[in-house]
Amino acid sequence: MGKLTAVTEMMAAEVLKATPIDNEAALREAKRGILDYVASAFAGQEDAGTIKLLQAIEAEGGHPVTPLIGQNKRASRGQAALLNGFMGHALDYDDVHSDVRGHPSSVILPVLFALSSGRDISGKQFLNAYIIGVEIMARLGQAIGTASYLKGWHNTSLLGGVAATFAGAQLLGFTAADTQNAVGIAASQASGLRVQFGTEMKPLHAGLAAQQAVQSIEWTQQNFQGTDAALDSEIGFLHVYSGNATDAAVREALTERWGETWRIAEPGLWFKRNPFCSAASHGADAALELAQLHLNSATIQKVEIIFPPGGDAALIHTRPKTGEQGRFSVEYVVALALLGQPFTLGNFGTAAVSAESEELVGKMSRSYDAEHKPAAQAIPKGRFTIVRLTLADGAVHSREVCVPKGSPQAPLTDAELESKWRESAPNQEKAEWLMQAIRGLENSNMSELEGFL
Amino acid sequence: MGKLTAVTEMMAAEVLKATPIDNEAALREAKRGILDYVASAFAGQEDAGTIKLLQAIEAEGGHPVTPLIGQNKRASRGQAALLNGFMGHALDYDDVHSDVRGHPSSVILPVLFALSSGRDISGKQFLNAYIIGVEIMARLGQAIGTASYLKGWHNTSLLGGVAATFAGAQLLGFTAADTQNAVGIAASQASGLRVQFGTEMKPLHAGLAAQQAVQSIEWTQQNFQGTDAALDSEIGFLHVYSGNATDAAVREALTERWGETWRIAEPGLWFKRNPFCSAASHGADAALELAQLHLNSATIQKVEIIFPPGGDAALIHTRPKTGEQGRFSVEYVVALALLGQPFTLGNFGTAAVSAESEELVGKMSRSYDAEHKPAAQAIPKGRFTIVRLTLADGAVHSREVCVPKGSPQAPLTDAELESKWRESAPNQEKAEWLMQAIRGLENSNMSELEGFL
Repeated sequence: MGKLTAVTEMMAAEVLKATPIDNEAALREAKRGILDYVASAFAGQEDAGTIKLLQAIEAEGGHPVTPLIGQNKRASRGQAALLNGFMGHALDYDDVHSDVRGHPSSVILPVLFALSSGRDISGKQFLNAYIIGVEIMARLGQAIGTASYLKGWHNTSLLGGVAATFAGAQLLGFTAADTQNAVGIAASQASGLRVQFGTEMKPLHAGLAAQQAVQSIEWTQQNFQGTDAALDSEIGFLHVYSGNATDAAVREALTERWGETWRIAEPGLWFKRNPFCSAASHGADAALELAQLHLNSATIQKVEIIFPPGGDAALIHTRPKTGEQGRFSVEYVVALALLGQPFTLGNFGTAAVSAESEELVGKMSRSYDAEHKPAAQAIPKGRFTIVRLTLADGAVHSREVCVPKGSPQAPLTDAELESKWRESAPNQEKAEWLMQAIRGLENSNMSELEGFL
Repeated sequence: MGKLTAVTEMMAAEVLKATPIDNEAALREAKRGILDYVASAFAGQEDAGTIKLLQAIEAEGGHPVTPLIGQNKRASRGQAALLNGFMGHALDYDDVHSDVRGHPSSVILPVLFALSSGRDISGKQFLNAYIIGVEIMARLGQAIGTASYLKGWHNTSLLGGVAATFAGAQLLGFTAADTQNAVGIAASQASGLRVQFGTEMKPLHAGLAAQQAVQSIEWTQQNFQGTDAALDSEIGFLHVYSGNATDAAVREALTERWGETWRIAEPGLWFKRNPFCSAASHGADAALELAQLHLNSATIQKVEIIFPPGGDAALIHTRPKTGEQGRFSVEYVVALALLGQPFTLGNFGTAAVSAESEELVGKMSRSYDAEHKPAAQAIPKGRFTIVRLTLADGAVHSREVCVPKGSPQAPLTDAELESKWRESAPNQEKAEWLMQAIRGLENSNMSELEGFL
């Protein structure tokens, strides 16, 4: 790859002039995205990791500026971004985007909440900035391709800080020069390793990326100077993380066709019905179909789970010891479904997995089929999961899923999203008001919402 | 590269049992290293970037726990690590280590100062932890080799956070399990791109790595859980950054021959006489020799600067616009020497370079000689720089330097280090006391020093 002259500059120009809320689908999905993120953060507010981080933040001190969601407390903008990012992703219950191969809203929204605090920011400005953030994160995901993910980086944090910094710069009306500077500061902090999947550090990656974005914005506001070419230099961000993508492909993904569609709506955010990694959703839905056969699990001899090559990269635990590790184990999720056990938060906590599920997991193996053609609308593109059971009597039952429930092709309805919200909210009365405020956010001001977080 | 089973665990075991101050050379160099770091931070205390960061920190608020060097102020441990790291490296005046290919002390010492604040930490504990930090950072540098640096990462921050976390864990007497946990948190934050060289972000990388290490230690103290295999997993830190190094070479660099020598003394820290990148030191010394010829610079037709391939990777500016960029330009440094202009802080500031130096820089070119054999004691190994002038009358003058002044083979004397200290210190009386305290640190307690920082 050579030098991608002026890509950062072109991106900044597009970002600063965009008004994506003029697009009806983008506006609708942005409001659904905010609802889903806040619901996910509510669900994570009593997580063990949340309590530990909160103690660390309180030990540091800091001016109480930005609300910590569901905590009735405030912290500095950076601290709040860290904790609100963590809570959103704590249960792996927050949205996913297939172009990102990661979680956009738990990075971008904590940054925008932090930067809105104590400032006169309209709901329209906030929504525009959020749509921009998702757009940039999805385009970055397309630009760098799959090599860095497969190597070991976690896109949520690797791309999230840069995307959220673009969004924050748009929110605050930065100049193009300041936007490039801030994005460069964020690029130089980008990090996060997938080896942390299944530990409390995985959700913290969302918080860290949000903290980094707030730092990048705040230091730029102090006129702290970095390079304006951190993304596109020959030794810059795109170069070091884009594997063998060509210059032309990277440039096209980042700079072409701005405004024709918005990636928050096309292909769209994927809202989770269940608190585990979306890469296990296909297998989960296939197993739920098999569970309809009411087989006696004792009669299951073996379970084969078949992916396209690399399709299970996020699912790093094949023999999980805890429910938390089970969030990244297709075997555990399939076992729960076959055993008729629900996908509740309790089954994905820090407790050891049940002996029953462990026994069934022990019968499972993964394989890969590069030839199999999934449905055209498969999400992510080309993805499928086949779950194939062999019973003691030799009978074989197999189900394939390419489009799981919750994904943009089979989205949660507004009513389902509302159920998720109500199940997660700590205080129904406050939450009811907040839900209505988010639904009419384009006519509101962020200062009105913030006290209800 | 495959899985490096238990490398993190083996490193933690070595670190936690080590008492390197028993080694006389290591103890001596550690005390010199602390003096040189504090002198460099004193010199950076009024840097423009320092003032901007300080404003950002004051806007955040936080409990005043750890002194900000030379500022007569305190901040939270993480904030102090950030600013003290920045100040140490602000002028590129701080030490270098050839195995690290970066700057160890401006990351490690701010972390150890931050963690010592308000605790009963002896000078011996502090010195042990510092030597350990340099040891780990140098071993990591050897383990990952040159590929990641050439690709675009900055070793100071990429390796510094992990090394400083090992050092901090040793300082606080962590268990092996907590050490591995904290190191994993640091590994997942490792970052920093060389494209930032020549901007205020380059020194901030030292501060960011220090901040990350403090976070990793503090979150582990709250029992926040990550993986214990972040370094050695097949998708872990060593794998993603070690290029094509073999498993055996990585394992050997990190786990073999602990305690035989200490890398802080062998090959040793390189203390700077001048505030520019050490990779330009060879060229600078060669040009100083040529300046002895008292040539009229107007008669110089061309200047060729010859390196081994890749030997100039850190020197990213061939036509610097400012003195700050000139810190990473062998051309600028050579021009100053040939013009008889001193290597003062003023000549490496944010002001534009002089017309005279710009004209001379315009006559320079770099080339690479893979066949040339430098002196056996060259530092880094295999490095040389030849500066070859061609005059208007066709005469050619050439000088080669392999061991520049300041490097471990031609170290600054204690008296030269003391001059650097005195020139940098803001308050001579306080500084005198502090210098004596550092020189007798093994018989002191950190609480006695800290008020004088």
